[in-house]
Amino acid sequence: MYEIKIVVPITTELRLEEHTDAMSDATANVSAMTITTGPESIEGSCDEAYAVPGTIKACIEAERQGADAIVIDCMGDPGVDAAREVVSIPVVGPSRTAMYVAASLGHNFGVITMLESALPLFDDMARLYGMHDRVACCRHIDIPVLELADDAERLTKALLAESVLAVEEDRADVLILGCTGMFGIAGALREGLADRGITGVPVVDPTPMAVEFAKGLVKVGLTHSRKAYAPPREKVICGYELA
Amino acid sequence: MYEIKIVVPITTELRLEEHTDAMSDATANVSAMTITTGPESIEGSCDEAYAVPGTIKACIEAERQGADAIVIDCMGDPGVDAAREVVSIPVVGPSRTAMYVAASLGHNFGVITMLESALPLFDDMARLYGMHDRVACCRHIDIPVLELADDAERLTKALLAESVLAVEEDRADVLILGCTGMFGIAGALREGLADRGITGVPVVDPTPMAVEFAKGLVKVGLTHSRKAYAPPREKVICGYELA
Amino acid sequence: MYEIKIVVPITTELRLEEHTDAMSDATANVSAMTITTGPESIEGSCDEAYAVPGTIKACIEAERQGADAIVIDCMGDPGVDAAREVVSIPVVGPSRTAMYVAASLGHNFGVITMLESALPLFDDMARLYGMHDRVACCRHIDIPVLELADDAERLTKALLAESVLAVEEDRADVLILGCTGMFGIAGALREGLADRGITGVPVVDPTPMAVEFAKGLVKVGLTHSRKAYAPPREKVICGYELA
Amino acid sequence: MYEIKIVVPITTELRLEEHTDAMSDATANVSAMTITTGPESIEGSCDEAYAVPGTIKACIEAERQGADAIVIDCMGDPGVDAAREVVSIPVVGPSRTAMYVAASLGHNFGVITMLESALPLFDDMARLYGMHDRVACCRHIDIPVLELADDAERLTKALLAESVLAVEEDRADVLILGCTGMFGIAGALREGLADRGITGVPVVDPTPMAVEFAKGLVKVGLTHSRKAYAPPREKVICGYELA
Amino acid sequence: MYEIKIVVPITTELRLEEHTDAMSDATANVSAMTITTGPESIEGSCDEAYAVPGTIKACIEAERQGADAIVIDCMGDPGVDAAREVVSIPVVGPSRTAMYVAASLGHNFGVITMLESALPLFDDMARLYGMHDRVACCRHIDIPVLELADDAERLTKALLAESVLAVEEDRADVLILGCTGMFGIAGALREGLADRGITGVPVVDPTPMAVEFAKGLVKVGLTHSRKAYAPPREKVICGYELA
Amino acid sequence: MYEIKIVVPITTELRLEEHTDAMSDATANVSAMTITTGPESIEGSCDEAYAVPGTIKACIEAERQGADAIVIDCMGDPGVDAAREVVSIPVVGPSRTAMYVAASLGHNFGVITMLESALPLFDDMARLYGMHDRVACCRHIDIPVLELADDAERLTKALLAESVLAVEEDRADVLILGCTGMFGIAGALREGLADRGITGVPVVDPTPMAVEFAKGLVKVGLTHSRKAYAPPREKVICGYELA
Repeated sequence: MYEIKIVVPITTELRLEEHTDAMSDATANVSAMTITTGPESIEGSCDEAYAVPGTIKACIEAERQGADAIVIDCMGDPGVDAAREVVSIPVVGPSRTAMYVAASLGHNFGVITMLESALPLFDDMARLYGMHDRVACCRHIDIPVLELADDAERLTKALLAESVLAVEEDRADVLILGCTGMFGIAGALREGLADRGITGVPVVDPTPMAVEFAKGLVKVGLTHSRKAYAPPREKVICGYELA
Repeated sequence: MYEIKIVVPITTELRLEEHTDAMSDATANVSAMTITTGPESIEGSCDEAYAVPGTIKACIEAERQGADAIVIDCMGDPGVDAAREVVSIPVVGPSRTAMYVAASLGHNFGVITMLESALPLFDDMARLYGMHDRVACCRHIDIPVLELADDAERLTKALLAESVLAVEEDRADVLILGCTGMFGIAGALREGLADRGITGVPVVDPTPMAVEFAKGLVKVGLTHSRKAYAPPREKVICGYELA
Repeated sequence: MYEIKIVVPITTELRLEEHTDAMSDATANVSAMTITTGPESIEGSCDEAYAVPGTIKACIEAERQGADAIVIDCMGDPGVDAAREVVSIPVVGPSRTAMYVAASLGHNFGVITMLESALPLFDDMARLYGMHDRVACCRHIDIPVLELADDAERLTKALLAESVLAVEEDRADVLILGCTGMFGIAGALREGLADRGITGVPVVDPTPMAVEFAKGLVKVGLTHSRKAYAPPREKVICGYELA
Repeated sequence: MYEIKIVVPITTELRLEEHTDAMSDATANVSAMTITTGPESIEGSCDEAYAVPGTIKACIEAERQGADAIVIDCMGDPGVDAAREVVSIPVVGPSRTAMYVAASLGHNFGVITMLESALPLFDDMARLYGMHDRVACCRHIDIPVLELADDAERLTKALLAESVLAVEEDRADVLILGCTGMFGIAGALREGLADRGITGVPVVDPTPMAVEFAKGLVKVGLTHSRKAYAPPREKVICGYELA
Repeated sequence: MYEIKIVVPITTELRLEEHTDAMSDATANVSAMTITTGPESIEGSCDEAYAVPGTIKACIEAERQGADAIVIDCMGDPGVDAAREVVSIPVVGPSRTAMYVAASLGHNFGVITMLESALPLFDDMARLYGMHDRVACCRHIDIPVLELADDAERLTKALLAESVLAVEEDRADVLILGCTGMFGIAGALREGLADRGITGVPVVDPTPMAVEFAKGLVKVGLTHSRKAYAPPREKVICGYELA
Repeated sequence: MYEIKIVVPITTELRLEEHTDAMSDATANVSAMTITTGPESIEGSCDEAYAVPGTIKACIEAERQGADAIVIDCMGDPGVDAAREVVSIPVVGPSRTAMYVAASLGHNFGVITMLESALPLFDDMARLYGMHDRVACCRHIDIPVLELADDAERLTKALLAESVLAVEEDRADVLILGCTGMFGIAGALREGLADRGITGVPVVDPTPMAVEFAKGLVKVGLTHSRKAYAPPREKVICGYELA
């Protein structure tokens, strides 16, 4: 039985047991932990900066507690590179995973994220991951992260409006939910699209997909390259209670 | 319990039950089938051309028999695009999967394949999948596909020699076994690399990884985009016994 | 006197003598042959898969009959790579040729093809040929291949509508007819564009252009690289009556 | 009978009648003209700058004299863009043509030019023409343009040495003669390569290939896009005796 | 005190003393010189061709007169490469500089130039400078160069209209004035954008920025690479009174 | 008189007054400040993560104290994006600046950094800044950051050895010092290169160049785009003493 740990890189409880239970199966137990220092939500580079030290700490703790793999639960993939330098188990980013999965399933994907302020993050990640010319569009619904869970109907309606444009105007043939706070909405979105006559367009819900990718890595015995993510040399670091 | 079907797109029995058993687990049963029309091995574009019609037929049969997902067991990904047009379940190519996994785990990957004649296929696939500038190198060991299983020591030695060059000269930080006929050798290769002082370089064995990706897709309920892979219009096709 | 053979990779007679006569001149005789196994038309990857074995066979026969070069008469360039492995004479693909010619004559080209299902093929080919960032747009007219010849007026009107959008909205400065079944329509399209005030936009009719490229290769004594397209190693191939 | 005019953009007579006769055939007469103001050879950007005004003038004259197409006889493609603005007949650059032909015949090409000072020009052209990631290498033989014709043996030997490295070390599968002053040497180079055991690598001699491309454009009735190369607005130009 | 020389590559007086005075400061004196042979304005490749020989001459003179760096005052960067071969002091192109500055300050820039005929020049430069996928759009205002200074209100209004579209439709987050003849208008444009509710979008006025870059290069002691811009070998050049 | 503030994103005093004095001039005063929480040196992603929160704080303080522009003194450009979200004055990264300056002065640049562990950071930055295909090589000298200042001779010798390889084997025509801790060594390196017969290859010392770029931005009144770097929405951030 593998242990997959979802590290939520904000101080808000996002992943209830019902979500992680749905991701668990006969081979793997999935659980979540929230960081204790950092922002209550991530909507830009500055928020990410405050989230990463706590995320590194949580990843170290997760490995110590016996996790077999980690998924960082934010579409900015904050701390994935840094955490990989200090743990040996796989650390998976949902954004990177979702982009590669989307490129595997279609030709050009659209991302629907929450706020305009996050668009440059996706632009940068798409360049970093080599997926820039697969991005049909990157759209936003103008709802802050912490309001996403408040009103499922509002969220579905907003996602649907942008998704239709992504498919019909920007010719996206796969859609990615651009914020991990949008979990559980993919089904309603697919139904909404079908009502508009749009079928056969996969909607990638990034965290569950990243969890599956993490399970697969554990099963085949792979982790990140230590040539690409070398352990840091020992050094004095001021102002942080290190793990 | 999911059913994952490995379609071996050549007429040679490649996947014994012991291999597929190793890929099965508590959530998924993995089995293989071999095509009946086509070449005995695939080492170039012409071989691929003869393999694809039989592969399409096998994929249709696998879906009819209740498979939840298909992995096509060849690093040329032959027939993946065509089969996706005619089945609804996910059809996964090991080359595409291995490249994205390698890009997820490191910065620049090296592929070690069997023959020089296959190098242009990898060049083309890397362009198609958007991974061209992640390829540190594409090397070959000069052993034909059907001889790969004959002499594990020869295979390991040849792979090791090229892998060392891939890491040390071409700066690959992840390695991909460039032929699905090289299964089961990743462990020995990793040990050989360690003996040479090279550690921390993941070696991706593509088919088991593709099988895990297929399981993950089934678990989260995703398949390929029908916008990207539209079902063919009905038409007369001469000379083939269609499935 | 060179012999240029047009291989039509479908089982429908597409190239009447009047077309090939118009492509012949004092240096080269142009003739066509149709394959005997395969689909009646090509509109996607699956159709292509069934077309390629017969196309390989036809290319081998054409070389045996003394052809100096071959043009494969379909905008998916089906079988070009495979056929190059088994014949020594140049095998020319109209799509590759048209894209390079368009890039030679302007900055950004638009492709107008028949069906939406073919758009991903062009996306893939543009990536393979290195022309992806020259594609101003890829549009379709929603007329199946086998109906293209039925109603020249309908075809012209549909092409004109998309061409105007390609030039005015997508800023294409060269147009490519995206299906070889659209032959003979370029003049009417240019006239229609002129009526709309659009002049100076070249319209590439791919097969005649590919025939000229084939003639040129023969004249200067060039053929494809055998390093890039190595002859296949001898092997057992089941289920095909090989040439 | 088409008239193809080779415009030699230097003040040195480069193209004797024997060369142009070899390029003529039953459909096209090929002749050459040399510019009267400009450098005696082109080996860098500054030389090109002095060559272009005279080249524009020659192109205008060629069109007035009834030429059906123009080939500019220098691998820097000097003046192609400018001349296209002022003439209606096709103006073909041998470098652009050779790169696209090489990309049509193989996967990665090597250019062997005369001097190190010309390498950045090829780097720039490869970027402009979209062929940058097809360049296996760009090598030079360290012989100035005007000495190329002096000693065929020296030239062949130098080209052979670099060509072997291009194929064996840089994995070029097509070679391009990187200076139009290297005409007539492709055969000897191919023989030399064969003596070294290297066969099946096409050697593109750019000017004859560009002449064939020009003939093909005339035959199918294509010329450059006027959207991409708009005629200049009338204006005062000081210091030039315009055509 | 450094001497920065602006070389205006047209025969029209463009840079009055008031402009250069505004660019001077306590460390550097900025002055301008106009070429004596060439076109009265540059709006395409042909105009550029006539401008370059005079520009090279002016650069040589500027260096002889003791300039520490040169800025060529045209958004086509005409003669930058050629002049670098013959002078040792830095030669700065405003277009290259503006694109890199825009990429430094944002993610995707829009260029607003004067005429449609100039758009392909920007397309080419963006490719050459590696900035092609940063270009959100390239728009034009349909006012010839020599009319830009005639009517500041007309110019502002036209720039504003295109700038709003660049930001709102094409998602440019930085704007570049696409003609050096648009100097002095950035402030009014920024105000106009603010009136439309668009704030925080930098407007790069290329020549003043290029002058600052030139000052910086002089301060740190850098100039262009002589490996990239080798001095031309001595040779006969007909028809030019060389500097 | 402008105030340019160098923010040193480590807790080690790196910039003595003599360095900043050398960067000051009649238009701008340059001074440095060191962060108080973070690592003593930056050699990987994890070090960066601990450096960024302190860097953001320092940037806010610098702006409050009246700075006109900020240069972050580390070749990883840590915190540039985050700081731009919270200050209005320009925040300049030396790596981004050095890459664009190198691309402005030559065709292909080489980076010589301190440790192998930093190479992936440069790979990522080159992708982010669009300069990936300008990188001739990225080499390292295997000396940790905090030892760089210990032994100038050792540093020069190590840099020289890699620089010669960068120029002669990798064909770099511009060199970038790949760690801001290498300041003051460019002159000795250039002399060493000249002794080896390598002249005309610019060596970019990133921080002084970035300071000049910052001065230029202030002079022309430009700062980063607020569309690209939106101010963060107000939110609770735990565990940090915010500025």
